[in-house]
Amino acid sequence: MTGSAALFTDRYELTMVDAALLDGTGRRESLFEAFARRLPDGRRYGVVAGTGRLLELISQFRFGDAELEWLREHEIVRPATIDWLADYRFSGDIWGYREGEAYFPGSPLLTIQATFAEAVMLETIVLSTLNYDSSVASAAARMVSVALGRPIAEMGSRRTGERSAVAAARAAYIAGFDATSNLEAGRSWGIPTMGTAAHAFTLLHDSEEAAFHAQVEAFGPKTTLLVDTYDIAQGVETAVRVAGTELGAVRIDSGDLPTVVASVRHQLDSLGAVDTRITVTSDLDEFTIAGLSGAPVDAYGVGTSVVTGSGHPAAGMVYKIVARRDDASEWVSVAKSSKSKASVGGRKNAARRLDATRTAREEIVFVGDGPDGEAEFEAGDRLRPLMVQLMSKGEPDPAFLGHDGTEAARAHRAEVMQELPIEAFRLGRGEPVIPTTYR
Amino acid sequence: MTGSAALFTDRYELTMVDAALLDGTGRRESLFEAFARRLPDGRRYGVVAGTGRLLELISQFRFGDAELEWLREHEIVRPATIDWLADYRFSGDIWGYREGEAYFPGSPLLTIQATFAEAVMLETIVLSTLNYDSSVASAAARMVSVALGRPIAEMGSRRTGERSAVAAARAAYIAGFDATSNLEAGRSWGIPTMGTAAHAFTLLHDSEEAAFHAQVEAFGPKTTLLVDTYDIAQGVETAVRVAGTELGAVRIDSGDLPTVVASVRHQLDSLGAVDTRITVTSDLDEFTIAGLSGAPVDAYGVGTSVVTGSGHPAAGMVYKIVARRDDASEWVSVAKSSKSKASVGGRKNAARRLDATRTAREEIVFVGDGPDGEAEFEAGDRLRPLMVQLMSKGEPDPAFLGHDGTEAARAHRAEVMQELPIEAFRLGRGEPVIPTTYR
Repeated sequence: MTGSAALFTDRYELTMVDAALLDGTGRRESLFEAFARRLPDGRRYGVVAGTGRLLELISQFRFGDAELEWLREHEIVRPATIDWLADYRFSGDIWGYREGEAYFPGSPLLTIQATFAEAVMLETIVLSTLNYDSSVASAAARMVSVALGRPIAEMGSRRTGERSAVAAARAAYIAGFDATSNLEAGRSWGIPTMGTAAHAFTLLHDSEEAAFHAQVEAFGPKTTLLVDTYDIAQGVETAVRVAGTELGAVRIDSGDLPTVVASVRHQLDSLGAVDTRITVTSDLDEFTIAGLSGAPVDAYGVGTSVVTGSGHPAAGMVYKIVARRDDASEWVSVAKSSKSKASVGGRKNAARRLDATRTAREEIVFVGDGPDGEAEFEAGDRLRPLMVQLMSKGEPDPAFLGHDGTEAARAHRAEVMQELPIEAFRLGRGEPVIPTTYR
Repeated sequence: MTGSAALFTDRYELTMVDAALLDGTGRRESLFEAFARRLPDGRRYGVVAGTGRLLELISQFRFGDAELEWLREHEIVRPATIDWLADYRFSGDIWGYREGEAYFPGSPLLTIQATFAEAVMLETIVLSTLNYDSSVASAAARMVSVALGRPIAEMGSRRTGERSAVAAARAAYIAGFDATSNLEAGRSWGIPTMGTAAHAFTLLHDSEEAAFHAQVEAFGPKTTLLVDTYDIAQGVETAVRVAGTELGAVRIDSGDLPTVVASVRHQLDSLGAVDTRITVTSDLDEFTIAGLSGAPVDAYGVGTSVVTGSGHPAAGMVYKIVARRDDASEWVSVAKSSKSKASVGGRKNAARRLDATRTAREEIVFVGDGPDGEAEFEAGDRLRPLMVQLMSKGEPDPAFLGHDGTEAARAHRAEVMQELPIEAFRLGRGEPVIPTTYR
C-alpha cells in the first residue's frame, strides 16, 4: 500500500486524462464542483466534514515509481500520459464551504479550478473523503444535539474499515463529540481518547472483584468500571466496595437502559457514591439517546450508528464539471441535460441569509459569479458568505490542516448550529430546514 | 499516518493490557472468538471476507518509535507496558473460516489463541476488517446471484472512505464481482480494473461527437461510450456513427432502465451494431438488478449499494474471550452472563452438514473441542469441516495472502454457493437458510 493517494482513484479518471491529453482538451481550464443533489432521506441539514483531510491528500497526490510502473505494465494509459503523471502535482485553486459548515441540497461545497486533466483526476479522492466524513458528521451532529450537553464519545472503530475509523473519529469530533476510542485519531488529529476495559478483562480474572481490583490498582479509583458482565446490581456493589465512593464512573453496555440507569443511580447514591458517574454504551443512536434524556445518564458512548452515518453511510455528493474554457479561452457553462440527474452549470458563489435574530432562512446560490469574483452580496444585509479559499495554486491554506484545522472546524460547527432554526433539530423526517434558491 | 496497524486500536485494549500485565493475568493463555450473534435483518446467509487482509495487518502489527513516543507522552499506559509494546509481535495461533465461506449466526469465524495481552490487543483490527469486508461481500454475493452470470463491476470507491474503497473492491471480487474501478485494488490485490469516461469528458468537449471521436482515437472502437449526457437516442446514433458497428459497448447511467435499455438495444440492432454491448450503472442494487433480468443488459456496474453493504454497512461481528487458563494452567470456559448479549463460552469447532445432494442443511458448532483437537465429526457422513489454521505461532499461512489468497477466496465462495439451498438466494427477508446447532 502506497503512502500516496494517487491510486485511490477510479480507472476512468486516468483514461479521461489520457484521451484528453491526446486531443488537447485536457489543457482546457475547467471548474468542477462537489455538491449533494439532496440530503439523506428525511434529514433537515448536513454537516460538511473531510475537507481538512482532503486538502492533505491532494497535497500528497503524486505518482511514485511503483505506481507508474504498475500503470505502464497494465497499459492503463499511453506512455506519454505516464510521463505527464510522473510530473503531476495539483497546481490549481480550490474554494469551498468551511469544514464544520451546515449544508443543504445544491450547496456548492467545493469548487476546483485547474486544467481538466489536473482537476478530473481528483474526483474519486474528493468524493471518498467528503461523502464518508460528511455522512459521519451529519449523523453525529444529530446525536450531539439530543445529548443536551452531556459528553458523548465515539467508539465505533470496529464497525467500519480500519482507516475509515480514524476519519470517523475526526468527523464525529468536528460534529461535537468530545472524545474517541481510536488511538490513531488521537495521534493524527489531536482528538482526546478514552476507554478503560471490556468484558474480556472481567472474564480473564477469577472473579469480577479480582478484575476491579486489578483495574483500580492500575488506574486508581477515578477509573470507569464496567459493571454488566454478570449481574448489574452485584457489579455496582462490588465496584463501590473495591474502588470506594471515589469511583469515577460505572459503564453499562446492555439491558433496558432507562430502567437500569435509574436503578443504578439509586444504588450508587444509597452506597454513598453520589459523585460516581454513569456512562452508557449499548447500541446507541440519536433516537435512543433522545429516549434517555430524562434518565440520570452522565455520558454516552456511541459506536456503529455514528461511524455508519446512522442509516446513511454515504452523503451522496457528486463531483461535476460546471464550466470550462473554449478554444477562444472564454468560459462556457456546462451541465448534463438528460432527463434525470440534471445539474446546474456555471460558476457559483453562496451565502446564507439570516433574519434579524441571526436565524438562517435561506441558502442562496449565486450562479455565474465565481467564489473569486466580486461578491455582489457583500453589501446585502445579513448575508453570510459561505465559500472560502482552501487552496491557492496547489498550496493549501494551513489554517484548515492538522490539529488546528480540526479544532477550527469543530468551533465553526458549534457557531453554525446556533444559527439554524430550531426545527433543524427535530429527529423526525422532514424537508431541509431552509430552502436553497438559485439566483 | 503510520504504515503499521498498531494504533488502529481502541484505547481500552491497551489499558486492559496495562492492567493485566501489572497483576500477571495478561500472561494467561486465552482463546478469543469472532462471530456474529445474528445476520443483518432478513438476510439468509453471510459471506466471510477480510481474512486475508487481516492476516497481513496482524503480521505488520508493530509499535514503532513514533507510536511508542505518542503513547508515552499521553500516558496511555505505564512505562513498563511501553517496553512490552515495543517488543510486541503476535506469536499465537489463529484458526477460522476460509475467506469466501458462507456463515450463519454463531459460526466461529475466527479463533485466536495467545496470551490475553497478545490476543486482546487485536480486537479492533480483527473486527474492523471482518465487519466491513464481510458486509460488502455479503451484499455483493446477493447481487452476483441475481445478475445471473452477466458481468458485474464494483465502482463505488467514491461512496466510502478512500482506503475502505480498496477493501470493498477486494470483498466484492471475492463475492463474485468481475472487476473494479479502483486502481489500488488492481495493484494491491490483482483485481481486474475497468472504466473509460464520465459525463465530464463529454462536457469538456465542444460536442458529444467530438468527445466520442477523442475517446475512439485514444482507445479504439472497442471502447465503451457513455451515451446519456444529452439525449440517449441521439447519443447512441452518434456513438455508432463515430465508432462504427464495431463499437464495444454503450453505457447508460440514468433514466428508467428497463424501458431505456430495450429501446437502446433495438436502436443498436437497427444500426447494425448487433455485437455492441449495453452496460448500465445507475444506482443499482440487488433489487434493481433483479428487475433488469428480463432486459437486454450485458453488464452491470454497481456503486453505493455494494460498498455500503446494501443497507447493512457493518456485519455486526463481535470478538469475545471464550476460554482462558487458570493459575493451575487448566482451561476455563468463560462467557458474559448478564441478561442481554449473552454468548456461548468454550473452545469450538464447526462443520456444515450436507444432505445426499450436497445441499447444506445445518451449521453445527461443536462446543468444547477446539479447532486443533481431534475432530470428532471426521467419521460422520457429509460433515464438511469449516475451520482451517490461518496462522501458526504468529506466521500466516501464505496460501491465504496476497493475490493468490484473494483468488482462492473467490473460488471457495463460488463452490460454497453451490452448496446452499436455493431459498438462500431469495431477495425477500427471511430467516437464515440453515439453522445453527450447538453440540
